[in-house]
Formats: sequence, C-alpha cells, structure tokens
Amino acid sequence: MINTEYKKKGKLIISSTEKSSDLYYASGFSAPDNFIYLERAADKRIFVSPLEYGRALKEKKKGVLVCEIRNENTVEIVKRFSSGRGAEKFAVPFDFPLGLATKLTKEGISLKPVEGSLFPRREVKSASELSKIKTALETAESAMKKAENILSESRVDKNGFITWHGEKLSSGMLRRMIDMEIVSNGAFSKDTIVACGLQSADPHQRGTGFLKSSVPIVIDIFPRDSTLYWGDITRTFVKWKATHRFSRIHETLREVVLLAAQKAKPGIKASKLHQIAFDYIKSQGFRTGKQGALNCGFFHGLGHGVGLDVHEEPRISPKNDAPLQKGNVITIEPGLYYPDFGGVRIEDMIVIGEKDATVLTKYHKNPLIP
Amino acid sequence: MINTEYKKKGKLIISSTEKSSDLYYASGFSAPDNFIYLERAADKRIFVSPLEYGRALKEKKKGVLVCEIRNENTVEIVKRFSSGRGAEKFAVPFDFPLGLATKLTKEGISLKPVEGSLFPRREVKSASELSKIKTALETAESAMKKAENILSESRVDKNGFITWHGEKLSSGMLRRMIDMEIVSNGAFSKDTIVACGLQSADPHQRGTGFLKSSVPIVIDIFPRDSTLYWGDITRTFVKWKATHRFSRIHETLREVVLLAAQKAKPGIKASKLHQIAFDYIKSQGFRTGKQGALNCGFFHGLGHGVGLDVHEEPRISPKNDAPLQKGNVITIEPGLYYPDFGGVRIEDMIVIGEKDATVLTKYHKNPLIP
Repeated sequence: MINTEYKKKGKLIISSTEKSSDLYYASGFSAPDNFIYLERAADKRIFVSPLEYGRALKEKKKGVLVCEIRNENTVEIVKRFSSGRGAEKFAVPFDFPLGLATKLTKEGISLKPVEGSLFPRREVKSASELSKIKTALETAESAMKKAENILSESRVDKNGFITWHGEKLSSGMLRRMIDMEIVSNGAFSKDTIVACGLQSADPHQRGTGFLKSSVPIVIDIFPRDSTLYWGDITRTFVKWKATHRFSRIHETLREVVLLAAQKAKPGIKASKLHQIAFDYIKSQGFRTGKQGALNCGFFHGLGHGVGLDVHEEPRISPKNDAPLQKGNVITIEPGLYYPDFGGVRIEDMIVIGEKDATVLTKYHKNPLIP
Repeated sequence: MINTEYKKKGKLIISSTEKSSDLYYASGFSAPDNFIYLERAADKRIFVSPLEYGRALKEKKKGVLVCEIRNENTVEIVKRFSSGRGAEKFAVPFDFPLGLATKLTKEGISLKPVEGSLFPRREVKSASELSKIKTALETAESAMKKAENILSESRVDKNGFITWHGEKLSSGMLRRMIDMEIVSNGAFSKDTIVACGLQSADPHQRGTGFLKSSVPIVIDIFPRDSTLYWGDITRTFVKWKATHRFSRIHETLREVVLLAAQKAKPGIKASKLHQIAFDYIKSQGFRTGKQGALNCGFFHGLGHGVGLDVHEEPRISPKNDAPLQKGNVITIEPGLYYPDFGGVRIEDMIVIGEKDATVLTKYHKNPLIP
C-alpha cells in the first residue's frame, strides 16, 4: 500500500550530503552545496550546478541521470519535471525546507513530508555497507588503542594529575592524538569526547582541562570513513586506582552490554531491548532520576542505528516499538551518570543476523590503566 | 519595518548545530542532535533533551534561558510558549522542517520562512569573531605550508610521477598529511581538495590517484576551528616545470585576486565585484562557456562570506546585488578550468573595513615548486 503510494507520488530531496544522507544514498553523489534529487518510478535524476556537473557525471549511482542547472531556479525545475509526467505529488523528507515548500505549493506541487528516511531500506545494511561500517569501526578502535596507549605511558603527579612525557595531559591534547589517528586512516572526526571526572556526568560533554587519576575518563570516538559510513565506540577508563563505586558501575554496564547483545535478534522491539537494559540496571540498585536540578542514572536511549548517519534508525529507546530486523547495525551503549561522581559509558556495535546478533566491536572492556 | 515585524513575530529554530549556524549564533550552545530555540523580544530560550541539559546550562550565551524537555513534544512546547504570550507568529529559517511546520500550522501557529540568516548581523563580524576566523585561517595556512613542504621534498620519477621518501605520492596521502596538521591545531577538516591534472578541472573534485609533475595541483583547505569558525585558502602548485599555458592562467588569476581586493570596499555591490573579475579574465583572452558537454573558463562565483558557515552571505556572485558592508569577511577565489588542461584557482580571504579591504591571507602565491 505504502509502496504503491510512493510510486505514484515520486520523491523529492533538495539538500546537501552533509544535511541529508538520504540524498547520498539515493544518488551516490556527494556535494557540499545543495542539489536536487527527483524520482518517479524508475526515473531518477539529480540536478546540479555547473560547478558540480562534471564530477556528478563520474560519481553518480548507476541508473541516476545527471542534469545541469542553467538558468532555471529550483521551483521551475521541479515544475518542469512534474508537468512532463502529469503528476505533481512528491514524498519529501520530514526536514524538507519550508521556504521551498511554500513556493512549490503555490505552483500546484503537493508535498508530503515523511517521518524517518525516505528510504527505509537504509536501516537494513547490505554486505557492502556492513563492510564499510566495519572499516569505520576499525578506525575508531585504532584511535581508542592510541588513547589507551597514551594513558598507559602516562604517570600520575603528586596532585593526582595525569602526566605524559613530563607534562600534564589535557582532554584537548588526548582528543587531538585520537583525531590524528583517525585522519591518518583517511577518515575524519569531530566532537570526539574525552571527558574526565565530574565532566563525564554530561553524556555529550566533550571535555576540557587536565585529566585526573582515579576518576572516570569517558572516551567516545565516532569517525566517518571516506566511504561516508560511520563507526562508533565508547570506553571508560580510570588511571591509577578505581573506586569501589566506579568498579560496581562499570561491571554492571559491562553486563548490560553482554545481556543486550544476547537478547538482540530479529523481531524483538527496540523499546523492549531498552527496557531489558533499564530493568537490569535498576535491579543492581542504580537509581535514575534527578539529583538536584540535574539528571542522574541511565537517562538516554540504549543505542541507535549507525550507517550514513552516526545516529539513525532504529533508535533503541522506550519510544521505538518497531521490531529489529536482520541487517540492522546498532550501538549498545548503556551509561550511568551522577553529578557528584561523573559518568561511565560502554558502547559496542552489533549487527542483527538471521536469529541473533553479532558483536562487531573487538575492543576489550577492561577499564583499569595502572 | 522589518525589525518591528521581527519583534512582533518572534523567532523559532529547530535544528542541530551542524545543520544551523543560526542556532549556535543565537544560543551559544552546540549540540549534535536537534534542539529548540524560541525568541520573542528579550525572551530567548532553548529547549534541550535531558542528555544535554547540564551542559547547556554551562555553555549557553548570556541572556538565554535553558529549559529541559521532559514529556512534551516539540509541537506542545512551541504551543505552550506561544499561548503564554498571546502571539503565535514566528519567523523561521528558510530550511525549517516542513514536517514540523505542517504539525505546528494545524495547531494555529503561523510560520514565516525567511531567506538567508534569521540574524543578518552574522554577515558583519565583530572583533571577536574576526579573531576566531583569523585563527582558523592560520590553521589553514599552516596546513598549506605542510603540503608545500612535502611537495618541495618530493622528487619526480622517470614517468613524471611525484615521489616522496621513495614512494609515489597520492592525493589521498597528501590530503591526510594536510588534515593531520589541521587536527594537530585542534581544528577539524573534511573534503580537503588535492586535485591534480585533469581532475582539477572540476572545482569540487577532491582528487584521487598519484600526483604528477608539470600539471596543476589545486589544494583547497578549509578547516573549522574549535570555536566553530572557518578558514579557507586555495593555492595551485606545479611540481617541476610549468607550461606556458599554466603560467599565463596563474598570472591572470593572481592579478584578479589583487584587483578584487583593491576594488572591494563598503558600498560596492557583490555582483559588481564579480563582474570586475569576470571582465578582467575575459580581457586576458580566457573564454568561459562549454567545451563539449563540460563547463570551461571562470564558471563559479568570485567568492563567499566565511564565518560560522564556510559558505555564507554575502555571496560574491552575479546574482547578489547587495552592497558589501564593513565587517564582511569574504573569499576572493577566481578560477579557470579547462577539461583538456585542468584547473587553477587562487583563494585569499579579505575583511571589509571603513573605506577599503584588508587581505587576511598571508600565504605567498608562487606556484612553482622545483
């Protein structure tokens, strides 16, 4: 039913690769500036500026026609494409630009925004996509190894600061070493997290200042490979000695990752997988709620899909009741955060198979660095 | 008039930092996932997920209130904010998500998409912004120096390939060395261009394969500093010996950069500046048009604004008749491209002052590397 509807409707995307992975998925062409993708049944086209025309011809996916934009504006192009086919209805991304939509609607073009991807097949990875994701994950793991090596080589000064080659080691410096390892693998990275101590109680805090011993150091690395697929890994280390509290939290999360990877299989609801993790954490005595004005406990989703977007469907959260499918690549990343302690998060990637799931991440989960 | 209108209307942005620099400009808060910015007169708020709440409190701009999203969805939040103020009209970005707009409109919220930035003041850089842009540009220049040094250290083998430390040097390898220099400066980069020979006839071709001597090597470097401001530089080199054709093209473009930097000042139309460059190139005998199916000559805009976006207003193109203003930071980047030859592009950044413009880029423009 939906498929027929889609065929009748056609699809329209106006965006850049950076903003729309659907656009790259559909066209095979990557560009920093906006271009147009139009589809009706088997007719698939991109409209690009003269600046991009030559490159688009070489790089576009098989079956996609490349047209050069000359003196027409976007509205005129869409109109001409539609009227030649006696149909003016398009499914568009949920985040299709309202400004353009307003202009197109005035010209009698009807747009239907679709939640999630215009290509739900993106959730199901092909063998070739899986291989690209694995490459990106290997880059992430090699960068994690770099970070761990630096922490291993480091010492602790009398004030409890971590020193490397005789100087205090900062979040920023460790992040640079991680990012250089990523770049040396031909991938790129930004927002790498190296958050230490109380900073790590904020899951998206990138981290600043000098690293300290005996408190959690959360390292979350997510490079995008040159194929445009992402990898994602998180480990939490502690230099010198771990507190009892740290060890209990870390051990619990390690068990959650194992448990979730065991329970993940085709047919299980994403929300159910989250709930299993949540319940286990709760059963171990860890409270989720407020600590003063701030959130504490396990207050984010268990994981998310990874592919052309670092965060994509399926979301492993209480809100997503869709069943997992064979070919989903997702993260399992339980975390526990307390403003008076810091945070601990462990993140692996798994792929859903015929009957169960395979863990893609090879990196060990020993948090202690003497 | 427009200002009054804006005040009455309020502003609404729902996006992520990556997708909307307006959002960061308005809130001072940077996040990888979507959050909400709402403004009416002096009341400025962001609504963020529990995941981001703690960090947002610490990082947000002065005068911005941080609210945590609990059980309400986006539509409910916007509705509550509006109805408390007896006004349901918002200016929104041109690329405001159509899907959300549809839902909000059903609830009686009226949205007016605005072309360009919701904050036109972004085109006029403060001293603090200029300083951040200069830092990003310095990073770009240090990476260009790295690339030039590698080409200087390189040799040419008997087949005309460039070799470095005894191995053929590829676009990819040179790009990695450039990107590592950028990362070591705490910035990040992607899409760095190292395009050699005929590849460089495509202005956005990133470049692949081994580098050759005696043909153009276009290197375009645009890092984003940790402050989120960008720098942008292009140089075209030739290793070993330049052809007469290369030298004539390069010399002409060098003169164009000088000429445009001289003519740039407050009040001159952006389109006029482009025209001056175009006319000069034409007067030197360089044709712009088609060569077979492909574009040749000077077929892109002369430049663009740089700030929180690497391509932002003001565009220096035939389509933009707006006058330049004091505080604009723009690129001047004429290029000439021929499918049977390759491309040459030279790009400097300038800032518009009281009466004239100052060139920010310090890097030399000698293309020859013996």
